Parts: sequence; structure tokens; C-alpha cells
Amino acid sequence: MGTANVPNPTIRRLSRYLRKLDELSASGTEQISSIELGKSLGLTPSQIRQDLNWFGEFGRQGYGYDVKMLRENLADILAMNRNFTAILVGAGNLGKALMESFGFTDCGVHLLCAFDTDPQKNGTLINDIPILSMDCVAEYVNQHNVDIAILTVPKAAAVTVAENLEGCGIRAFWNCTNVDLLAHSRDTIIENVHFADSLMALNYFIAERNDEIAKRENRKANRIIADFRVGGGCVV
Amino acid sequence: MGTANVPNPTIRRLSRYLRKLDELSASGTEQISSIELGKSLGLTPSQIRQDLNWFGEFGRQGYGYDVKMLRENLADILAMNRNFTAILVGAGNLGKALMESFGFTDCGVHLLCAFDTDPQKNGTLINDIPILSMDCVAEYVNQHNVDIAILTVPKAAAVTVAENLEGCGIRAFWNCTNVDLLAHSRDTIIENVHFADSLMALNYFIAERNDEIAKRENRKANRIIADFRVGGGCVV
Repeated sequence: MGTANVPNPTIRRLSRYLRKLDELSASGTEQISSIELGKSLGLTPSQIRQDLNWFGEFGRQGYGYDVKMLRENLADILAMNRNFTAILVGAGNLGKALMESFGFTDCGVHLLCAFDTDPQKNGTLINDIPILSMDCVAEYVNQHNVDIAILTVPKAAAVTVAENLEGCGIRAFWNCTNVDLLAHSRDTIIENVHFADSLMALNYFIAERNDEIAKRENRKANRIIADFRVGGGCVV
Repeated sequence: MGTANVPNPTIRRLSRYLRKLDELSASGTEQISSIELGKSLGLTPSQIRQDLNWFGEFGRQGYGYDVKMLRENLADILAMNRNFTAILVGAGNLGKALMESFGFTDCGVHLLCAFDTDPQKNGTLINDIPILSMDCVAEYVNQHNVDIAILTVPKAAAVTVAENLEGCGIRAFWNCTNVDLLAHSRDTIIENVHFADSLMALNYFIAERNDEIAKRENRKANRIIADFRVGGGCVV
């Protein structure tokens, strides 16, 4: 694609743009300015232009972006047409939630099947996706083209399962275990989904906001006291 | 905290540092250099030093970081001791997965209860957390101190539910609905957990890597052909 060194946050914003363009398209909008697009996404227009400039010239001065064309370009950049395949490993609560509710197809990913150690789950279906025995995973990966392993195993199993799968030839992981995993092969890509990091970032922002509100109220209280003094009131 | 303008990616790395320090502490490590810490996290030492410098001087030349002290400082920065409370809204698969498996306490957050529209769920417990009727949410928020609403409702309900909760006075959302939400009040904070963005970023990286591998192999093939020509072989 000739797009090495695109900043990570830019890559992570592309799918937000894509979703917004889908919404616009569905509501019949054919063109949009970077100002309007920015407003609807809580981003500055220059941020949007900078992000998109990494991949080409999509906008036209005085016209903005052609919604359909930009959407197609973004889908292409995000490899939605490459028919990537995935297996899910660990059909517990989170695995089940993903199988039942997550739009894999909307992301251009075909979920082939899931694996679990629980013999009672083997041979069952969740949302039409077969659950197979963990004992078969190496054989399955050998015989099928699997681009991505989705890890939803318990924390304690994460490292071992990932190592085994990498040993079987898996070279991309969508890691939802909340355990930081490191790749062994230079070609292996690990995308860690950080539930805890996200909640703790929220904690940080709440604390920061609460401190700001406290300061704001403190300043207000001090102003009232000062006004009271100026007005000749007495403060004990 | 006097730490405004800390870059977002820095804030999001703090909890990774915290987890690693917990691991180190558990294995009896008392001090660590930024080189070792970086190696274990796949980050450069200068990245780690830059991140931590936003909050103070935690390391000592020639000694590195005191694991326990740095851990305590990070926990403080991440507001883990502020006893933030949360309600979960939408006790479906994902809500259930979070209630059953997610370490809220490890993030310093106390999950009070969950709300769901399904009357069959009302009054039941998941992992000791009571599920209440959605009809009671406004009253509950009025009567209790709720810092965070965790949104795990279906996509179609996300915007309405968030607006209602903001109307009830909720000022922080951990939004797991995969719908981008915008705040109405200046004090409201929304942390969007982007499952789809994460998977699509992975798509992007796989495509980029596959293209690189293809180029690498192409170059190799061209070299072999060139060597064959130099060696006097004939290429039809």
C-alpha cells in the first residue's frame, strides 16, 4: 500500500470514519465537508484531512468528500475485501458474546469456527458457528487458511494457548484476554484488546475532571468570600 | 493533579505499566531499569521515561525504578483509590461476560448493580451483582452516588439510553456498544470501547504485513532469476 509509518491513532480512526460514512450513505448524504464530518465525530477538520492525506487525495476544494467513494477507499485500506478468516479460541462468556453479537462480517472477517476445552460444548453451534475440541486446533489450522486467532480464553491460559497457536502457524491474534502477549515470529501481529486499560483511562479522566470541578468550585467560593469581605461582611 | 495535556496514548499505557509492576512484585523483583521494563512490554526505554516524566521523577540514575513505589504512584495517578462506583446497563451476553469475568475491583471500580429491560432478569443475581429493572434506573441514580455507567445495551438502544442516563445526571460512560456516542454536558466523559476498530486495525496490519511478505518474496524470486541469468541459464 506504500503507507508504512502511518501513525497508529490514524489507523484506529479509519473505521470510525467508515462507520460514519455508512450512516451518511444510509441517510442519503452524497457529499460531506471535513468540517461537518469532524463535527459529527468530535474531531477537528484538520485532523480528518491529515488522517486521510496519508492514503491519497480524497477531498475536493469547495466540495468536500464524495461519501460513497471515500467509503470504498477506506474499506479497501482496511482490507475489508481481502476475505480474512478467523477462528475463535475459548467459547466462554466473552467468546459467546462475540459469536452472538459481534459484526465480524461488517469488519470483513469470516469467523470459521470456535474451539473450547469443555467436551460438553464440542459439536454444538453458537449462532451457527461450530464449536470444536481444542485437541483439534493444530490439525484444523494445518488444513485451513486461518488468518486470525481470536483469543477469549481465561487469563491463566492466554500465554500457553497463544504460543501453541503461533507454533501451529497462526500469525495474527486478536487478543481479548486482557493479558499482554508478545509475538515470537517477526511476522506475527498481536492486537491486544485492552478492556482494563480502557476503564482505567476512564478512571484517570474522571479524576482529572473531578479535580477540575473542585478547583472551579473552590475559586467560586473564594470569589463569594472576597465579595462578602469587600461588601463589609465579617469572616471569622 | 496538574497533569493536563498528558498525551492520550501515555494515559493508556499507564495501566500496562501497572500490570507489569504487579507481576514483577509478585515474582519478588524490587527494582527494574527502564531498559528491562521496556523489553518486557515491547516499548523503548525512552518511551517509558517520557511517559512517566509527565507525572514526576520516579527513577534513579543507575538504580532504575523502585517497583513498589512506582506501582503505588501509578495506582494513585489512575485514581484506583478514589472508590469510583459503576452501574452496568444491559445484562445481555457482553454485560454478563463483564459481570462474570472482568476484574472491576482490580481497576478500582465498584460495580453496584446492573439494569435490564427483560422482566425475567429483574431480581436475579449474576456473580452476586443484582439485576434491576430499567424502569428504576433514574430513581437509583438519584439516590446513589454513581460515577460511571457501563453501557452494554444493543446498538439500536445505545444513543437513547445514554441520553436518558446523562439526563439522570450520569457524567461518565464506559461505552461498550460499538456505537460512537457524543456527550451533551461539558463535564460528561465518554470512553468508547471499540471492538470493531480494534479488529479493523488488525485487518490493516495483516494486509500491510502480507503485502510486505509478498514484496520480500518477489525480491527473492527476482534475485534467483538474476543469479540464474548471471550463471548463464536461459529464461524463456
